[in-house]
Amino acid sequence: VTLADRFFDLHARGAAFVLPNVWDAASARIFEQQGFPALATSSAGLANSLGYADGEHIYVDELYAGIARIVHAVHVPVSADLEAGFGNSPDAVVATFERAAAAGAVGANIEDFDPVAGQLVPIEEQCERIRAVKARAHAIGMRFFVNARCDIVLNDIGPAETRVERSIERLQAFAAAGADGVFLPGLDDLPSIERVAAAIAVPLNILGGATTPSVAELKRAGVARVSIGSSAMRRTLALVRDIAKELRDEGTFAFARDALPAAEVNGLFLR
Amino acid sequence: VTLADRFFDLHARGAAFVLPNVWDAASARIFEQQGFPALATSSAGLANSLGYADGEHIYVDELYAGIARIVHAVHVPVSADLEAGFGNSPDAVVATFERAAAAGAVGANIEDFDPVAGQLVPIEEQCERIRAVKARAHAIGMRFFVNARCDIVLNDIGPAETRVERSIERLQAFAAAGADGVFLPGLDDLPSIERVAAAIAVPLNILGGATTPSVAELKRAGVARVSIGSSAMRRTLALVRDIAKELRDEGTFAFARDALPAAEVNGLFLR
Repeated sequence: VTLADRFFDLHARGAAFVLPNVWDAASARIFEQQGFPALATSSAGLANSLGYADGEHIYVDELYAGIARIVHAVHVPVSADLEAGFGNSPDAVVATFERAAAAGAVGANIEDFDPVAGQLVPIEEQCERIRAVKARAHAIGMRFFVNARCDIVLNDIGPAETRVERSIERLQAFAAAGADGVFLPGLDDLPSIERVAAAIAVPLNILGGATTPSVAELKRAGVARVSIGSSAMRRTLALVRDIAKELRDEGTFAFARDALPAAEVNGLFLR
Repeated sequence: VTLADRFFDLHARGAAFVLPNVWDAASARIFEQQGFPALATSSAGLANSLGYADGEHIYVDELYAGIARIVHAVHVPVSADLEAGFGNSPDAVVATFERAAAAGAVGANIEDFDPVAGQLVPIEEQCERIRAVKARAHAIGMRFFVNARCDIVLNDIGPAETRVERSIERLQAFAAAGADGVFLPGLDDLPSIERVAAAIAVPLNILGGATTPSVAELKRAGVARVSIGSSAMRRTLALVRDIAKELRDEGTFAFARDALPAAEVNGLFLR
């Protein structure tokens, strides 16, 4: 059984397995140690930790190196967040996915909002990209989980009352084009989530967060996979800011009392 | 005024300026934004975030790339934690310092405990390394702050009752060899800190932490600089573990409520 097989097998209707998004080797090892069977990268978390804004601003060599560091730090399968594929042709997107696969990823997300053009990728173009990626994986005999994301809800695109319907239309097309799973971030009401899960033939990924139902509720709604985006990374940055304020305003080190011991952290990397 | 000039000027007897140790571009930007006039890297934090244990296990190209990412993310001077210099000759240590300087660091620490040999570097050898680094900086006309660290107290080396005395002997020798400052981590009682500060002619760096006096007390004791090692990084990893436990055991996302907003974090890198 390969890592990719293990990753595919986690996806089942209503499995609602939690796929935490990590940003560096240390966060990856902590989540792995706590028993998560697979990890994803967060494009924002990875970019921010390396000095870039999210939105395909990262120097791509840094992106693939970041993915590789995470893959090599853990023994569980890792899915890569590749934003909209860093390119606006099927060939360019295939090249991006190939480099992520070479870095060790067993799957990747592909978004349908082009951050450079600032608009949705036309549905047929996005389907072509998905078909091209799946055809390439098939040609080289590699299982690679393509998670096709629709950004209509997340980015508030078009009339609010038709967003779920238009998202379903796109996700169905992406599934028909060969996507192994689909992802609709931003959706946080259970009836809509249930409706989407019932309308799509492949596993549905929902973004869990401060305003969403719990994992148990998402499971009952038929969700296959729950990821968290960059929220864990951004929560740690809020803590970094609190630490900075304590040091600056109080000149004390109370924060250090709750730190993991150095020997324990180094032990994560001595195997 | 260069970044190096600004960094040197922060060091004055009793200044007790806080030099936070960061581990990636995001932590660097947060501390810079909170007003700190200079930053240091944490060798452990940087190594752990990239998938290595501390103790010169890191692939050195990753070390210098990590330093460069931090330097390029901020406008304040950055001092590099170079452990014991990644080499056991003056030439090897000079090469290490040159690469850190090329990555943009304005200064660096050098430890007197060899993590490969597992013992203290003989005092005269360590002085030779310090002299070689300062001579090279002088030869190329570069100001570079060499912070010579003594590891006797931190690593519990030799009889407890003579550790402070033996540390002072070494730190005095390092200062005489040209070190711009000295660093005695592990010392946490004020009388000893005061004694060391009074005995050394160059600025004294103390490691602040859960068991040390406050910055105000260190200032009264004559300390010039207060760093924090990897404690802030390890505190965030304790939070990552708590987040992992909430996701695993509760299936909820309460942690995400306190995350910094994505737009704010990305804004740190859009300048």
